[in-house]
Amino acid sequence: MRNIKLTIQYDGTRYKGWQKQDNTEMTVQGKVEAVLNRMTGEDIEVTGSGRTDAGVHAMGQVANFKTESSFSLKEIKDFLYTYLPDDIVVAYAEEVDERFHSRYNAASKKYMYRIWNDKYHNPFWRKYAVHVQESLNIKEMKKAAEYLIGEHDFSSFTTLKSKKKSKVRNIYSIEITKNDSLIDIVVHGNGFLYNMVRIIVGTLLEVGLGNMKADKVKEILDKQDRKYAGSTAIAKGLYLLEVEYDS
Amino acid sequence: MRNIKLTIQYDGTRYKGWQKQDNTEMTVQGKVEAVLNRMTGEDIEVTGSGRTDAGVHAMGQVANFKTESSFSLKEIKDFLYTYLPDDIVVAYAEEVDERFHSRYNAASKKYMYRIWNDKYHNPFWRKYAVHVQESLNIKEMKKAAEYLIGEHDFSSFTTLKSKKKSKVRNIYSIEITKNDSLIDIVVHGNGFLYNMVRIIVGTLLEVGLGNMKADKVKEILDKQDRKYAGSTAIAKGLYLLEVEYDS
Repeated sequence: MRNIKLTIQYDGTRYKGWQKQDNTEMTVQGKVEAVLNRMTGEDIEVTGSGRTDAGVHAMGQVANFKTESSFSLKEIKDFLYTYLPDDIVVAYAEEVDERFHSRYNAASKKYMYRIWNDKYHNPFWRKYAVHVQESLNIKEMKKAAEYLIGEHDFSSFTTLKSKKKSKVRNIYSIEITKNDSLIDIVVHGNGFLYNMVRIIVGTLLEVGLGNMKADKVKEILDKQDRKYAGSTAIAKGLYLLEVEYDS
Repeated sequence: MRNIKLTIQYDGTRYKGWQKQDNTEMTVQGKVEAVLNRMTGEDIEVTGSGRTDAGVHAMGQVANFKTESSFSLKEIKDFLYTYLPDDIVVAYAEEVDERFHSRYNAASKKYMYRIWNDKYHNPFWRKYAVHVQESLNIKEMKKAAEYLIGEHDFSSFTTLKSKKKSKVRNIYSIEITKNDSLIDIVVHGNGFLYNMVRIIVGTLLEVGLGNMKADKVKEILDKQDRKYAGSTAIAKGLYLLEVEYDS
């Protein structure tokens, strides 16, 4: 059985997220599987490195699938490129060890959250960034982000209900850069809980707007309760940038 | 009679261009006039600095209109911002001399043409750049562009049929920059004939692909005949960046 690893970019605007659901064809996983099924005649299951929610974008989602077929990597890539809609692009296909699993073996991930910070929204960013009209104090946002770096229990920063699984994650870095009206927040960590990046961003926005002091973030972490953190920033600003694996 | 100057950004994807046409509401001029008519109760005519074709974008289209109404500039801007669709944004409104005419008084214009140059298209640029798969020789394209700088008869670079009007225009600069896979061609001149930027880009692409030598561009200019130049590059890569006026 061959194991093929794919690197996938998508504009999430039209999709109900990565993960296949009953009764809807509008998921990225569903679109990729449909093309592979058509090509191979098999019943392919594509495993993603993780879900992305409805409206979330990806510049480097990783997935893998098993197949008995003997198509070359180039044929697989060309077939996917030809038959996928133009808002999904498979940029790489590689043959990997049969034990490779895109979710279980992911060592770290990078997400970016994009903010258009100007009185008026920009027509070209309207689907690809959240619009914040009030000016943001980047310096305070950076200060607040510092409290999140390192290994912490992120219970306050997830909408995940399950109390069984560990909520401890290690955040390696949070970089905030501003170019004209565009602010990018890049978060790098060993793993992320459900909605974690969007709640981190929602909290940093409260600090940037002056509604919350930077050191309040330490308290929120300690509370281990979702209700103390900021709101969940909207999906269209979020991009899964990269998934890294130990080689 | 007051005279109001507007600076307008739009994502041209959904529109049949700037200029109002019979039987279609999907023009940018038509959308802006409809909102102003509703606000003022007058029959407003908005004059643009020039047409943009179906699918062409604008970061700084300029237009003006006359009104008897006494709404403040802030009220006009807020009303436009609230009632225009989110792919059209009026970023500035200014009161100008009653003799100001956005087309007749335009001293110069800047256009940008954007190319995504990579084997695969990028899902985020699919509506905002032309996709060219083959690698482009930027150095040769720059050399070719040099022949177009200055005052020339651009008859070879327009699909305008009229032989009565002068085809002489002055191109001040053509700047070609590459950032990763994105190539931007910015053309600055005192005026542009119909389709001129798109035919210039179509010709520079032939040079970049190696199908035409750079110095062939000088010959094409001399021929003063459309059939010698390259094809008209597609609309979605073109942006009207800026219109400048003598102050």
